[in-house]
Amino acid sequence: MRLILIGFGVVGQSFAKLLLSRTADLYNLYGIKPRVVACIDNGGSALSPQGLDLNRLLDVKRTKGTVASYQARKDKFDSIHIIENVGAEVLIELTPTNLKDGEPGILHITTAMKCGKNVITVNKGPLALAFPSLIELARFNNVNLRFSGTVGGGTSILEFAKRCLRGDRIVSFRGILNGTTNYILTKMEDGLNFQDALIDAKNKGYAEKSPSLDVDGFDAAAKLAIMANWIMGMKVTIKDVNRSGISKVKLSDMQLAQKEGKAIKLIAKCNKNSLDVKPTYVSKIDPICVNGTLNAVTFTSEHSGQQTIIGRGAGGIETASAILRDLIEIKDTLTEKQTIRSLIF
Amino acid sequence: MRLILIGFGVVGQSFAKLLLSRTADLYNLYGIKPRVVACIDNGGSALSPQGLDLNRLLDVKRTKGTVASYQARKDKFDSIHIIENVGAEVLIELTPTNLKDGEPGILHITTAMKCGKNVITVNKGPLALAFPSLIELARFNNVNLRFSGTVGGGTSILEFAKRCLRGDRIVSFRGILNGTTNYILTKMEDGLNFQDALIDAKNKGYAEKSPSLDVDGFDAAAKLAIMANWIMGMKVTIKDVNRSGISKVKLSDMQLAQKEGKAIKLIAKCNKNSLDVKPTYVSKIDPICVNGTLNAVTFTSEHSGQQTIIGRGAGGIETASAILRDLIEIKDTLTEKQTIRSLIF
Repeated sequence: MRLILIGFGVVGQSFAKLLLSRTADLYNLYGIKPRVVACIDNGGSALSPQGLDLNRLLDVKRTKGTVASYQARKDKFDSIHIIENVGAEVLIELTPTNLKDGEPGILHITTAMKCGKNVITVNKGPLALAFPSLIELARFNNVNLRFSGTVGGGTSILEFAKRCLRGDRIVSFRGILNGTTNYILTKMEDGLNFQDALIDAKNKGYAEKSPSLDVDGFDAAAKLAIMANWIMGMKVTIKDVNRSGISKVKLSDMQLAQKEGKAIKLIAKCNKNSLDVKPTYVSKIDPICVNGTLNAVTFTSEHSGQQTIIGRGAGGIETASAILRDLIEIKDTLTEKQTIRSLIF
Repeated sequence: MRLILIGFGVVGQSFAKLLLSRTADLYNLYGIKPRVVACIDNGGSALSPQGLDLNRLLDVKRTKGTVASYQARKDKFDSIHIIENVGAEVLIELTPTNLKDGEPGILHITTAMKCGKNVITVNKGPLALAFPSLIELARFNNVNLRFSGTVGGGTSILEFAKRCLRGDRIVSFRGILNGTTNYILTKMEDGLNFQDALIDAKNKGYAEKSPSLDVDGFDAAAKLAIMANWIMGMKVTIKDVNRSGISKVKLSDMQLAQKEGKAIKLIAKCNKNSLDVKPTYVSKIDPICVNGTLNAVTFTSEHSGQQTIIGRGAGGIETASAILRDLIEIKDTLTEKQTIRSLIF
């Protein structure tokens, strides 16, 4: 199976390491023999039809800062040219999330699908902004578009809803979709004010220098939009989410909540046709009332009632494990197609 | 799709109601048109190759106490004769759990599989006692054996582990698998002693008159054995579980735990090759520390870390929804087989 990797930051590198450590396993258990035939980052690209040496690729990235130094002579192809012309079954799109216009992710994903390549992405931007049309394009081109890692990192929130609740009808869901804000709110429960808790989160590496994406609820809203499309069949974008962040949560509100056996959490909620992200009082004995950087979602179904899933919502290796899950799924559908073809012809 | 129902208590009747309320849906979404061609309970059986009228069946059961009164002339066939001779794709085995020898469940299940029928069961006895050989028999006869409802009621604990964590490696898991004991322990946290909490659980209908199955940890041990086989590939039975129940938990232990921010829970644990069910101190901020009749399991995986799933572990309609999930899965595999057959011949 030939893969193109675009974006080679923490998640991309974790994925390469995962492929290295699981080589034998992937072949024995799932029949997958992955070959990364192209890897692209900000500095350029590394190409090899036989498959890049992942140990060397990781080494080059660590020492030189870009995969472009993998080969002596730097190639001059841009990413679109590579996506269009390098033979591969799957594009793995790992460029940073851009919630303004979804680029360059949208261009990468649509280009790949138009030339018959399957796509795995953990980039929330394209899906939060253009979910319905991307899915339609995938169907039209008869390729798979998978995105397990966009919600919950390695925690299989999307698969749980789609696969484990088959036959039932999910009527609503709500949860904590952003670990950074949950960490800050947990620190505020311990007595820090918002600014101090934010500084602490930055020091621990949980919050970015410009933390608006998390703190103002954009990240949670993007995930909520993806879930509403995928799980509930709604045709929405992040713009349809009523969103307010946590920067106005006061220490006194938090203390008031605690007196009533509650906590304040940034809750993302999908209920009938309304999508909301906002600080919400949650009972301490509610299963979604988790602490620290954890994520948690409760699905309410017509027959099986409420089911909650909890896990870390981020992390390089965790998110890489979601990409691997997607890859195995794609392998299965390709094998199925092949079986049917071999029987027909 | 022709179904034989054996056992028509709370779960069986809930399943019949579910089929009635979802008829259109099941056909439109999953291509399933279920026909219950036989239904067997303690009093006898109701048969109809065209499919029983489920409304009338439920009515007869409610008013006469047995489905045998569905037809004027009671038939004289025993269950084994019916399983062997009535044409059907799926046997749904819902007789009560017997952890001594697994009967009559084992006989029903093996008979059905030997004559090429797929089986869905929510009966823990056969699987807790004979999992490896039942799975082998299913493979040998090229039929499906499904049992989602045996663990977690409607909460998809087994599917979550198998499907949502594909590609990763589960290294251990632990959780609360019995709602009755969790209810009793929650009441003890509120200050009741064990005996009073047990009486309260009986009054609420959570505990049986002879509550040993729950209180002494047999039910949790049975579920643990099923999970160890299915998820971890261990070949074990309930006899391999080190088991101790909750009847010796003292109010003073509970109070001591509370002082340290902990609770005492009946934890079932699978770690390397040891299987344990015993009262255990659990931190209040641990996601599996759930209250009331909830169940919760945390899976620890090599790459994606810890993921927890929480839901009600019992209930007629909830468990019926697990049977429906299994039925949809079986339908999928039958369709696949048919597609391949139609392409070959």
